[in-house]
Amino acid sequence: MQSSDLKEDQIIESIAKHFRPPSHITGIGDDCAVIPIQDNLSWLVTTDALIEGIHFLTEEIDPTDLGYKTIAVNVSDITAMGGQPQYAFLTIALSQQISSLWVHSLIAGISEACEKWNVLLLGGDTVGSKRDVFLNLTLLGTTQPNAIKYRSSAQPGDYICVTGYLGDSAGGLKSLQAKLSTNKEIQHLIQAHFRPQPNPEIGKWLAAHSAVHAMMDLSDGLDCDLKRLLKSSQKGAMINVDSIPISEQLSKICQEQLWDPMEFALVGGEDYCLLVTINSDEFSQILEAYQQHFGLSLFRIGAIQSSNNELVYQKDGQVVSINYKNYNHFE
Amino acid sequence: MQSSDLKEDQIIESIAKHFRPPSHITGIGDDCAVIPIQDNLSWLVTTDALIEGIHFLTEEIDPTDLGYKTIAVNVSDITAMGGQPQYAFLTIALSQQISSLWVHSLIAGISEACEKWNVLLLGGDTVGSKRDVFLNLTLLGTTQPNAIKYRSSAQPGDYICVTGYLGDSAGGLKSLQAKLSTNKEIQHLIQAHFRPQPNPEIGKWLAAHSAVHAMMDLSDGLDCDLKRLLKSSQKGAMINVDSIPISEQLSKICQEQLWDPMEFALVGGEDYCLLVTINSDEFSQILEAYQQHFGLSLFRIGAIQSSNNELVYQKDGQVVSINYKNYNHFE
Repeated sequence: MQSSDLKEDQIIESIAKHFRPPSHITGIGDDCAVIPIQDNLSWLVTTDALIEGIHFLTEEIDPTDLGYKTIAVNVSDITAMGGQPQYAFLTIALSQQISSLWVHSLIAGISEACEKWNVLLLGGDTVGSKRDVFLNLTLLGTTQPNAIKYRSSAQPGDYICVTGYLGDSAGGLKSLQAKLSTNKEIQHLIQAHFRPQPNPEIGKWLAAHSAVHAMMDLSDGLDCDLKRLLKSSQKGAMINVDSIPISEQLSKICQEQLWDPMEFALVGGEDYCLLVTINSDEFSQILEAYQQHFGLSLFRIGAIQSSNNELVYQKDGQVVSINYKNYNHFE
Repeated sequence: MQSSDLKEDQIIESIAKHFRPPSHITGIGDDCAVIPIQDNLSWLVTTDALIEGIHFLTEEIDPTDLGYKTIAVNVSDITAMGGQPQYAFLTIALSQQISSLWVHSLIAGISEACEKWNVLLLGGDTVGSKRDVFLNLTLLGTTQPNAIKYRSSAQPGDYICVTGYLGDSAGGLKSLQAKLSTNKEIQHLIQAHFRPQPNPEIGKWLAAHSAVHAMMDLSDGLDCDLKRLLKSSQKGAMINVDSIPISEQLSKICQEQLWDPMEFALVGGEDYCLLVTINSDEFSQILEAYQQHFGLSLFRIGAIQSSNNELVYQKDGQVVSINYKNYNHFE
């Protein structure tokens, strides 16, 4: 069996079986590992890699954007646990084809993102690579142990919400691949693809509310990530397809190009906003307070159900089947 | 200018310029970053990557050994600061050519090494790679802040010592490349190459002695690593080539093959033992206590001098020039 047959989640499960941490530590299976340090302080640790030819093409992405994104995708994981990003450790593996100008632009993008999110880069490894560029970031964050939200805490009846429009990043990638001539809308989508904007303040605010039960970030697409949350919580869900928030920009480009925005929204990935489940009784208060605090919407797209692992999509009150192909790094 | 012109240390310096941590935190430039947590506890953090085609060839290394080595090289960095390895975060990027058997063997080797050094694997990232396998490990360790040894603390007159024989790993690699038929000695060298044996107990013991001034691990060869220590300490050094410890096994194979063991010892790299500088007045006491505690030798190979950055080699009391080519990932 070749690794094309090995799904990412299977490998992670196989690794997790070998390493069972003691009960006070959270290991493999959520956005971050959680290591308690003091009564009122826990460390969050996350690692994300960006690989040339899989996550980016050097001829398509500006190295400044790539550096920025390397930080942003990890900030998103810390955000999803309600934490404050703090210290970063970066591995850069470079092939001989890479120019020093490219490296300096990459570092400039990393530096810009670190400033934005108050992250200190404290170390890493710089090595050669035979062919492809490989970037890996480990990010440490801090949080209060009683304010951490896990994937496993969704309760039946919870409303399922997302904190941003879905599919913009995938629409941006598709626009690049289709070599569309750029306009204001396409620029917006491409920006979403190259410069994700996770907001730790939103993560901390949601984590501080007991009515928020489960939380994770959307990195591999709503369909894939929600299934992970359901598996972890041992619950099911109903998603109302009509409620999934699509930006005006994505709607417009999809209309023009005859693309299906729902495909981008459900399986496109790289949205880097939050997926949360909220106690339905307290939802309207949370929503009002959230809108007041951030001046932003919190989009309610469905509800958690007691069924185990079953994800049902509805449109106009009817169950619909979704047959988009999930993105898998090994395919 | 292509990255072949960019030396690893230059890139690290360029990154370090962008990120200057506050004075209580040690960032880029030593074996580990140091983050104080409590009065009597600091975190150590290190990251090391192993890249196919640069650090290993999948057709030559058993994946179990590769997994083991991925942990070992990072344990070596924690050891070099006098710390206790604790928590690991692993990135695995796999191409489609990699079989599931290979992945399971890799995980078995990681698991074996984690058990040996009491390391808990708490997370990571599992992604696809277009062509080459990339492995990255971030390892967190703990230590007492007053027992940390840095590269920058060497004092004039200090004796320079190493904790193990040098060159065995490079001799093992050369034996593999030359396809020598294996015997007991070659097996020993290959084992040194595939299964480095850093010993955190040795690191902690040395770090606990105030007579030990500077410490680092030997990963890129004595010549390269000692120059880094000298630069960091703003000192010079004299190394007595005749005192460099060469194992019986390496001596024997080098005699048979007409290889120069000193080349392996000075620029071969991957020794993963410790380089320390010790107050000369207290050296004999330290040596005796060390031998008594570990039943091992501590090899005195030279002395720190007040000159800035000058590394002089002597043989039979005469200055000799060393013209071996330093290993550089970008060449």
